[in-house]
Amino acid sequence: MPETPATMRQLRSLVTPEGELRLSVATVDTPSPRPEQVLVRVEAAPLNPSDLALLLAMADVGRAPADEGAAEPTVTAPIAEPVMRALAARVGQSMTVGNEGAGVVVAAGESPEAQALLGATVGFSGTAAYGEYALASPRMCLPLPGGATPVDGASSFVNPLTALGMVETMRREGHTGLVHTAAASNLGQMLLRICLADGVPLVNVVRRPEQVALLRELGAEHVCDSSQPTFFADLVAAVKATGATLAFDAVGGGRLAGEILNAMEVAVVPADAPYSRYGSDVPKQVYVYGALDPRPIELSRRFGFAWGVGGWLLTTFLGTLPLEDLIRLRGRVAAELTTTFASGYTDRISLTEALDPAVIGRYAQQATGQKFLLLPHS
Amino acid sequence: MPETPATMRQLRSLVTPEGELRLSVATVDTPSPRPEQVLVRVEAAPLNPSDLALLLAMADVGRAPADEGAAEPTVTAPIAEPVMRALAARVGQSMTVGNEGAGVVVAAGESPEAQALLGATVGFSGTAAYGEYALASPRMCLPLPGGATPVDGASSFVNPLTALGMVETMRREGHTGLVHTAAASNLGQMLLRICLADGVPLVNVVRRPEQVALLRELGAEHVCDSSQPTFFADLVAAVKATGATLAFDAVGGGRLAGEILNAMEVAVVPADAPYSRYGSDVPKQVYVYGALDPRPIELSRRFGFAWGVGGWLLTTFLGTLPLEDLIRLRGRVAAELTTTFASGYTDRISLTEALDPAVIGRYAQQATGQKFLLLPHS
Repeated sequence: MPETPATMRQLRSLVTPEGELRLSVATVDTPSPRPEQVLVRVEAAPLNPSDLALLLAMADVGRAPADEGAAEPTVTAPIAEPVMRALAARVGQSMTVGNEGAGVVVAAGESPEAQALLGATVGFSGTAAYGEYALASPRMCLPLPGGATPVDGASSFVNPLTALGMVETMRREGHTGLVHTAAASNLGQMLLRICLADGVPLVNVVRRPEQVALLRELGAEHVCDSSQPTFFADLVAAVKATGATLAFDAVGGGRLAGEILNAMEVAVVPADAPYSRYGSDVPKQVYVYGALDPRPIELSRRFGFAWGVGGWLLTTFLGTLPLEDLIRLRGRVAAELTTTFASGYTDRISLTEALDPAVIGRYAQQATGQKFLLLPHS
Repeated sequence: MPETPATMRQLRSLVTPEGELRLSVATVDTPSPRPEQVLVRVEAAPLNPSDLALLLAMADVGRAPADEGAAEPTVTAPIAEPVMRALAARVGQSMTVGNEGAGVVVAAGESPEAQALLGATVGFSGTAAYGEYALASPRMCLPLPGGATPVDGASSFVNPLTALGMVETMRREGHTGLVHTAAASNLGQMLLRICLADGVPLVNVVRRPEQVALLRELGAEHVCDSSQPTFFADLVAAVKATGATLAFDAVGGGRLAGEILNAMEVAVVPADAPYSRYGSDVPKQVYVYGALDPRPIELSRRFGFAWGVGGWLLTTFLGTLPLEDLIRLRGRVAAELTTTFASGYTDRISLTEALDPAVIGRYAQQATGQKFLLLPHS
C-alpha cells in the first residue's frame, strides 16, 4: 500500500458575510482515523442533488468568474439576499462537501470493525467525499464485491439505501404501496427496479411526457405526469389501483404533497360512503426527502384528519435501523451493484475542473439524465 | 322512568345540490339501542366549534331567512361556490349534528356494559346529540358523579378528553413540553389548568393582547401573542424555556404551524453549533386538530428534516387508547368536573331557538368567551 501523504487537496464551500459563495480547493492535513473510523483514498464521488445544494448554496453561479490570482483554485459567485437569510447558520464556515464516494481503505482505527476493512475497496457515506482522502465510519462502509471498481461503487450508498429505505419504511409503517415524485431520477429508476423485483405497487409521478415514456420502457405500470390537465384524476386512479397510502416526495415545495394526500383520500373513500367531515380513518403519509422546489409546502386540506407530512432523512433512518437490517440492505446493494443499483455518469471531472465556471454551469442544472462523477486523484 | 315516546325532535343539517344550507328540526322515530348501545334522553348539549362547522357548512348565515310556511321549523342560507366544492361529499344527505351532550340513560342494549348504565346520568359523545334522544356507546359514556347535573356534564367529553389526550400524546411520543394555539379558548384554558396541575411546561399562543392578560390571570407563564411584531422571537424564547417540541394547533391554515416548527428548530440548535443543511435531529411535531383558518397550511421549511405535521382527531386517539387508560382519563374528568373541566355557558337555547336567524348569527361568530348550550327538551 503506498504511503499516505501528510497533506491532501479537498473541495471547500464557504458563504461569506458579504453574500458571496467561495468555492476552493484547499490543501489541508490528511486526517487520522479515530479508533472507530477508517481513512479512504477517494477514487470516485458522485455529484448528487443533496451535495449540490450544500456546494452551491443557491448562489448565482452563472455570474461566477474564477479568481485567477489566487494561490489555490477559487471561484466566487453572488448569493441573493433572501437566500442569505436562509443560510445565516453557515456564514463564515469553510465547509467540506460530498456525502458519498468509493475508494480503498488506507488506514484504520484500532477498533475491530475498522481494522477489518483495511485494504478493502469500499463505497462509503461521509461528509467530505470531495477530497483525496476522507474519513468514514465502518457502519457507513460497503465493501464492494470482487471485480467491482470504485466507479461502480461510487453511488452505492445514498441512492441505493434511500430507495431501499423507502420500501423498508413502507413495510415498517404498515403501508402496502408507494407514490414517488421526481420518479424519473436516478433514484426513481432504482426504486422502480426494486418495486418491480419485490412486487411492491408503485405510482411514479413525473413532470414531463418524455419521462412517462422513459419509465414505461423500464416497466413502470403507473406513471402520472403532473404537467397534464388530467393529473389529479390520473393520480386518484393510480392510487386506487395500487392502494398506495405512503408517498416519498423529492420536490418538497408547492402543492404536490397536498394533492397526493387529497388523491389518496378520494381513492380510499368509497363513492357511496356516508359523509364524514373528519374524513376517512385510513392513515395517509407523505415523507419529504428533498427540496427540489424551494417554495413553501402548501397543503389544501380536503383529506380529513388521518394524515401526516414529515421530513425523511437517510442518516436518521439508518440510525434507527437494527444492525442486522443494515447488513441485509448493504448485502443487497453489493449483490446487485451493477444491475438494480447501477448508476451511469455522463461526465467525469477532477477537483480543479469542479471549479471551472463552465463546468459548474453544467452540473448546476441538475438535468435529468445528466450525472457528474468527481475523480479526486485525476 | 317515564315512557320513551315513539318519535322525537332532532336537528338536521342538509346541503342541497342548488348550493343552499337547510337547517330543520325533524320529527323522527326514536332509535332503539343495539346490544352494545345505550339511549340517552339528552338534557344539554354544547355548541362546540367542531359542531358548528358541520351544522353551518360555512353558509352565509347572515342571509338566512326562516321559512315561515314549512311544517317543521326550517332556515335556509346560501353557500358560496368554492365552499360547495369542498362539501360535495355531503350534498343531499340530511345530517344529524352534535358531538356530545349529557342526560339520563333511558334504554340499554343487552350487553353488560350497556345494561350497567341504565338509569345513570352520563356525559356522552356521539353524532346526534342535538335531539331529544341520542344513541351512544358505553365506551363513550362518562357516568357523572353524585350531585352533578346534565348541565355540569354536557361538555365532559370532547374538550376534557382532547386536553387530556394532548398531554397523553406528549408523554407517549417522548416530548416534555407543549405549544398550544388558540390557547384562550375553553379547551385552551382546560389544558392550562391540567398543565399547571401536572407540571407540564406549556407555551400558550393567542391572537390578541386581552387574551394574554386572561391567560396570565389564570396562571400561564408563557403566552405569545401572534399579533405582536416580536411574536417569532417571543415564541423562540418560550420554546427554549419550556423545551416544547410538540404543538397542538387549532388554527390549521396559514403560516402558524410552520412558524412553530421554525421556532422549535431555532430553540433546539445551540448558537455555536456547526452548520448542518439537514438541520437538527431533534424531532419536532405539530398536530393539527382544528380548522379555524380555512386557508391552506403553508410550511416555509427552515426546520431541517426532523419534523412532522399531521392531523389529530379525538376519536382516533381514543380508539388507540387502552381501556385502562380511557378509564383513568374519564375518572379524572368525573373527579374534576366542576373545577379543572368546568365549562361556562353564556346562552341556553331550545331546538327551535337554534334555528332563529338572530340566534344563529350570534353563535356563528364563535367569539371567545361566548358559549351556547342547547337544551333539547326546553
